[in-house]
Amino acid sequence: MKNHTQETAAPSTPHDSPSTNGTLPSSRRVYITPEGNPELKVPMREITLSPTKRLDGTIEENAPVKVYDTSGPWGDPDFKGDVTQGLPPLRADWIRSRDDVEEYEGRQTKPIDNGYLSQKQAEQASASDRNRLEEFPGLRRKPLKASAGHPVTQLWYARQGIITPEMEYIAARENQGIEAMQDKAGSSHPRNSMLHRHTGVEDQEWQPRLFSQFPQRIPSRITPEFVRDEVAAGRAIIPANVNHPECEPMIIGRNFLVKINANIGNSAVASSIHEEVEKMRWATKWGADTVMDLSTGRNIHATREWILRNSPVPIGTVPIYQALEKVNGRAEELTWEIYRDTLIEQAEQGVDYFTIHAGVLLRFVPLTASRATGIVSRGGSILAKWCLAHHKENFLYTHWDEICEICAAYDVSFSIGDGLRPGAIADANDAAQFGELEVQGELTRRAWAHGCQVMNEGPGHVPMHMIEENMARQLEWCGEAPFYTLGPLTTDIAPGYDHITSGIGAAMIGWYGCAMLCYVTPKEHLGLPDRQDVKDGVIAYKIAAHAADLAKGHPGAQYRDNAISKARFEFRWEDQFNLSLDPQTARSYHDETLPQEGAKQAHFCSMCGPHFCSMRISEDVRKYAAENGYGTDEAITRGMEEKAREFRESGGEVVTRV
Amino acid sequence: MKNHTQETAAPSTPHDSPSTNGTLPSSRRVYITPEGNPELKVPMREITLSPTKRLDGTIEENAPVKVYDTSGPWGDPDFKGDVTQGLPPLRADWIRSRDDVEEYEGRQTKPIDNGYLSQKQAEQASASDRNRLEEFPGLRRKPLKASAGHPVTQLWYARQGIITPEMEYIAARENQGIEAMQDKAGSSHPRNSMLHRHTGVEDQEWQPRLFSQFPQRIPSRITPEFVRDEVAAGRAIIPANVNHPECEPMIIGRNFLVKINANIGNSAVASSIHEEVEKMRWATKWGADTVMDLSTGRNIHATREWILRNSPVPIGTVPIYQALEKVNGRAEELTWEIYRDTLIEQAEQGVDYFTIHAGVLLRFVPLTASRATGIVSRGGSILAKWCLAHHKENFLYTHWDEICEICAAYDVSFSIGDGLRPGAIADANDAAQFGELEVQGELTRRAWAHGCQVMNEGPGHVPMHMIEENMARQLEWCGEAPFYTLGPLTTDIAPGYDHITSGIGAAMIGWYGCAMLCYVTPKEHLGLPDRQDVKDGVIAYKIAAHAADLAKGHPGAQYRDNAISKARFEFRWEDQFNLSLDPQTARSYHDETLPQEGAKQAHFCSMCGPHFCSMRISEDVRKYAAENGYGTDEAITRGMEEKAREFRESGGEVVTRV
Repeated sequence: MKNHTQETAAPSTPHDSPSTNGTLPSSRRVYITPEGNPELKVPMREITLSPTKRLDGTIEENAPVKVYDTSGPWGDPDFKGDVTQGLPPLRADWIRSRDDVEEYEGRQTKPIDNGYLSQKQAEQASASDRNRLEEFPGLRRKPLKASAGHPVTQLWYARQGIITPEMEYIAARENQGIEAMQDKAGSSHPRNSMLHRHTGVEDQEWQPRLFSQFPQRIPSRITPEFVRDEVAAGRAIIPANVNHPECEPMIIGRNFLVKINANIGNSAVASSIHEEVEKMRWATKWGADTVMDLSTGRNIHATREWILRNSPVPIGTVPIYQALEKVNGRAEELTWEIYRDTLIEQAEQGVDYFTIHAGVLLRFVPLTASRATGIVSRGGSILAKWCLAHHKENFLYTHWDEICEICAAYDVSFSIGDGLRPGAIADANDAAQFGELEVQGELTRRAWAHGCQVMNEGPGHVPMHMIEENMARQLEWCGEAPFYTLGPLTTDIAPGYDHITSGIGAAMIGWYGCAMLCYVTPKEHLGLPDRQDVKDGVIAYKIAAHAADLAKGHPGAQYRDNAISKARFEFRWEDQFNLSLDPQTARSYHDETLPQEGAKQAHFCSMCGPHFCSMRISEDVRKYAAENGYGTDEAITRGMEEKAREFRESGGEVVTRV
Repeated sequence: MKNHTQETAAPSTPHDSPSTNGTLPSSRRVYITPEGNPELKVPMREITLSPTKRLDGTIEENAPVKVYDTSGPWGDPDFKGDVTQGLPPLRADWIRSRDDVEEYEGRQTKPIDNGYLSQKQAEQASASDRNRLEEFPGLRRKPLKASAGHPVTQLWYARQGIITPEMEYIAARENQGIEAMQDKAGSSHPRNSMLHRHTGVEDQEWQPRLFSQFPQRIPSRITPEFVRDEVAAGRAIIPANVNHPECEPMIIGRNFLVKINANIGNSAVASSIHEEVEKMRWATKWGADTVMDLSTGRNIHATREWILRNSPVPIGTVPIYQALEKVNGRAEELTWEIYRDTLIEQAEQGVDYFTIHAGVLLRFVPLTASRATGIVSRGGSILAKWCLAHHKENFLYTHWDEICEICAAYDVSFSIGDGLRPGAIADANDAAQFGELEVQGELTRRAWAHGCQVMNEGPGHVPMHMIEENMARQLEWCGEAPFYTLGPLTTDIAPGYDHITSGIGAAMIGWYGCAMLCYVTPKEHLGLPDRQDVKDGVIAYKIAAHAADLAKGHPGAQYRDNAISKARFEFRWEDQFNLSLDPQTARSYHDETLPQEGAKQAHFCSMCGPHFCSMRISEDVRKYAAENGYGTDEAITRGMEEKAREFRESGGEVVTRV
């Protein structure tokens, strides 16, 4: 066995309350250091398990389970910072040591950046306003930008054959610590082994048709070179603005773990800066891989600064929202100059990816007139209005090359928007939507030529049988760039439950190859999500993403299912709770019926009661089989499976003696 | 236009509270009488909509929307009954008029039927027990059974070419009242028309592979003859025991609307008779198409009587649960005689379908020994234990023909159990599971030979990429009998959210052809579902079933999505709430942010605020397009789509003037 990893651990804080601070129950923060990279510390959450108590009295230890952790330093009890100071700049040295960026004065912040006509107005408004302007009080670093005459993007490095620290970090992170176990165990993993996993392609007969054209390429272990190769090919991106050094590297691509995004952001109607920072921390505690700040109204610039300085995950924005605020909401008054200035403002702050609706072309707009719900994307409708008002082509499209130059200088990734996505089942896969998707492909190739990293946004509202076509066309038309979809919602009739209607579509498109799933909360179509909605949305999307990872056969996926199922079968209730996506909820549901502490040791549960438990009976069966020479080891099982297959192939004649 | 339907309406009770009694907001009960059948009254819920107010001040009425209604007479404000009297026997005359059943004395109820050794013990236990034995006080009808020497099953009638009133009722019910609208409208339905629908097979390229072998056969209108034909072929069942005349006919088959089942039932640990009756009514209020009474412990017989006499939907049971109670929980003491007596006891009460685990054969049991979670089905584990204890073949398998004779005499449908279903992702699609599925196929054919109606139960825990294989093998091995699955759950790691993990799998397998989806509540694996859990489970499964109906292209499905999307686009907030699966929740989520009554008239919502609303902007676009000669009618749209296609086919060169 090779010693792949070294670990350092923060102290455990078991049974913590479900606040934003602190770790989850029976969990501790560990850092994995990949072999040969003593300086890298890749964070994971390690869940401690109790031992198995066999009916014969023997005890077997259960190895702790490491899981992907997006909570950043906030999830490490040893970290003593607070939101007024921001997070430490993890990547600062990596960025500097590449010797291709320079510090400069940067753009001067203006009152209009926060929605005020003057500094005086800002102060007056704040005095009477719940949502007062409060500048981030921590250190303000001077911005960095490219200085060596080439893009400073992860794509550019990948193309040069350079494996960056970001790529090494990501490889260790994606494996979720199972490399060491893989090395220790043999290659054979029966169904009751922790390392057993279904491959994603074990039976080609039932794979989605698109896989024959666009096969999965997930290796049994993610290596830094594999990360580099996928980034170089444009099949994956690492959103990592040089001005967001607090960000822990992560990757978005269909041959990696499926990622999820949580949207936050204040609006003109409700919510404050501090609530939004808290939502960001809350979302990443539960597993959001990136966060989009969709703030509108006042204090956009200041809110974003607070969020970026405190965020361990990439931050995305839709710059047209802020640009529109600068022209007082009048879409027709938008200009390239105002937009360009906004891009630079946000790139200097450290935004990791921009949604840009450059594919909403003039000629597509009338295609939406006879739709059931027209244009439902905010960005899409703003650009459509601009195009019609001026009867000119979308200025984001006509200025695309200049936009690419800006993004290449900071490594802001593109999330090319789908402004014409369907907002109703009726509008799915129509001419407007697919017309824009093809243009997204053209924009992707042009951005790649500038060395920029690109993903494409997708729908929306799509019935199940029309989802695969979305993925297939995106892969074909957009050169296999990562896809990033909003759900899709598989029906329109369940407002209040759209985390579920969309979770179905999200899981499916994740399996088909969608790289990141933008969450939808229960409040979608109805109101602004609160703290509980954010959590509900994140959990629903962690479920969708993980279901997709299992279906893709990602090597780091099934291990956690195996661990929780073993705990369930062995009545290790505490372990079952602690291995779940939401330990507190699992525990509280159990305790509603059987609150006594003893019940969590019991070999039964409230569904069946003590005399009628199928799992208990199964243990008896297992024991009986062992005692009567059926055995439990793999060889005998294989023999039995063989026998059963023979039986089936013989036409199902009853065999009298097994 | 033909006048297909006559309607009678019960008074409306708008804005009702979310109690079990009463209708949902802006809804009234209507009864559709199919042409030529003046005696049939098929219940539906009709949702009244407000008119569309155009920006130019014009007003357009919106036709009310009829939806499938499973709540029975309890959903009709004119019905004045109560649970102590039970529901009126809707089907009594239909059953009698076939002249093939006779009344007889029936089996004497024994104390052991309710888990007591004597009447005295029952009285003693009740005196000190919260879960006291309380007999149903309403009329006790003498049981009916076949008397004419042939089965009295809907399958037998269908094979004779007889269209029963049950079949006519079902045809009208499945169409959900859109026949009349279809007749009125032309054949062309653009995307913004209420009757627009995507067909399920419009693009063969992206259909699941199994459809090439087992194509969908859904017509554009469900006719009584189509119902008869599907039942005769064994592809659909109508669970309708002659002793459950209160039941409103419904159909389970893959060429019909996907149905959902809700499990209720007391257990040894918690809950009372009245709570279970209330759960049944609650589940059917929200849309459960059938209910399974899985009671264990005491008072099983009495609880079932209360439920049957009050249930407008078919009731299913797992008779082995009660049989096991009769031998005090000792599986090895089960005998054919005790089981047989239990079947007759339940058939006489009116149970509409029996889950019978006759496919758990002795030789399959050892295959489960090296599984991650062994046997997780209660019925499966009981039978496995019996098989091993006696080293004999499963007595349900060896007595199958006698079981069929009993069921044929009452028209109890079979739900052939899957006692070896996987209880963990690791165990999906293994030899034990598929071995049993093949035997389910053999049992299906034998039951058909006896004239019995059959469906097959399926898993369980299955990752997404292994679901289609389940459906394909079931169709192949079980002769296209309806499939009825529990989820499947697509991951094991989210206890507390298994309505979502399983809703994903349920929607997918529903699309692939699964006819009925057994709900999973958030409490699965953790505890007994309470009222809120039952509702959450039902709503999640209504979502899954409806998403599947859309993907299958069922003619009655997309209409409701179109109606709610139109309401959403036109800011008719009240209509959006009222058309949703759960109006109260949708309304309350909206009101959390914008509680003022005026906000529900507003052309904006809390997500974007008044100045930034994409839907408002879209309306402007639509208006602009109309004023500038783009037009909104279908012909112009087709022209635009043509142009866009030309553009794409030309390789995406930018066209300077549209």
